[in-house]
Amino acid sequence: MKIYDVANFPNPARVRIALAEKNATDKVTFIPVDVMAGEHRQAAFLAKNPAAGVPVLELDDGICIAECSAISEYIDHAFDGPSLTGQSPTERAVINMLMRRAEFMVLDAVGAYFHHATDGLGPELETHQNAAWGNQQKQTALNGMMYFNQLLEDNAKQKKHYVAGNEFSVADITLFAGLAFADFAGVAVPDNCDQLLAWQSSTASRPSVA
Amino acid sequence: MKIYDVANFPNPARVRIALAEKNATDKVTFIPVDVMAGEHRQAAFLAKNPAAGVPVLELDDGICIAECSAISEYIDHAFDGPSLTGQSPTERAVINMLMRRAEFMVLDAVGAYFHHATDGLGPELETHQNAAWGNQQKQTALNGMMYFNQLLEDNAKQKKHYVAGNEFSVADITLFAGLAFADFAGVAVPDNCDQLLAWQSSTASRPSVA
Repeated sequence: MKIYDVANFPNPARVRIALAEKNATDKVTFIPVDVMAGEHRQAAFLAKNPAAGVPVLELDDGICIAECSAISEYIDHAFDGPSLTGQSPTERAVINMLMRRAEFMVLDAVGAYFHHATDGLGPELETHQNAAWGNQQKQTALNGMMYFNQLLEDNAKQKKHYVAGNEFSVADITLFAGLAFADFAGVAVPDNCDQLLAWQSSTASRPSVA
Repeated sequence: MKIYDVANFPNPARVRIALAEKNATDKVTFIPVDVMAGEHRQAAFLAKNPAAGVPVLELDDGICIAECSAISEYIDHAFDGPSLTGQSPTERAVINMLMRRAEFMVLDAVGAYFHHATDGLGPELETHQNAAWGNQQKQTALNGMMYFNQLLEDNAKQKKHYVAGNEFSVADITLFAGLAFADFAGVAVPDNCDQLLAWQSSTASRPSVA
């Protein structure tokens, strides 16, 4: 199977970490997409993902899967290894909820700030900027970081060391990618988020990430 | 278990349809949230869902699940009946991807238009409006409707009658809720979307919806 992506971009990182956690990186051929030249908005790529985003997973039968939540579902169920999306109905629901929060409270909020309120990927690509929206989303991201800091503090009191509890999951992967994007975009983690920073440092030392 | 929601709101409708598809509506006590009075932004509700949205599923052990994708995971795996989220890795991924597209291309885009570029829920609740953002998202919703119309046309040629193929799924439920929200918000389906309108009419006649 193939993955069309850009190494080091935030959403591609989510999929690459998930693959590494499942020891499946060598099952995939990575094909770089020249986003800076607008390749993701050309017909050949839009046929794979009409939403024009990376990454896209193309299965051997030609089916294309976009959206990290969907690609993660595929990877988690197609390969052996510890579950990244949960097993019981409650585990599945809690992990899904916290992954979605890591998206809209942090990663996607940072993305909106980056693309709307900074130079982003440059004037050729950032053609619909709305600085007020971007700056509002920056505040969303800061609030999201404080929310996850508190969540991780509460978890630690119960000797749970991951976002969704006792097991590393796609919720951790998504939050980690969101914080990396924040670093890149110049959105500093608020003061007093020590638990979040300790978790980030611990996550950064996992073999799948490092 | 309990569900905190507002009957007829778009996201609550997704969960109510999923429950009806699984014949599990009578397993739940519905508790109305007075969103118009701002109850969803008060401390008691924020303790259940810090993102301040309805619906929230509260399990008997007190665990609260927010986000429709997560609540749907729970419902689909906790109750018998036809799968709404898919079974094989590919089915799961395709349904998840198309549900996400129904969210960000239609339902959430209509929501952004409604809350940012119309009176929305009124001046007491719509305190951070950004009309330019709302109107841009209205165009996203119209483009999304055209995308799903084409998808349903392509599916019909292969005798597949649902968004994700042969089986009714959370992707159908989400798109249906998105179109209902669009009707409410005055976002008309573009001309020539006959396949989308036929699918909407057919979906409206399901016992879980009607």
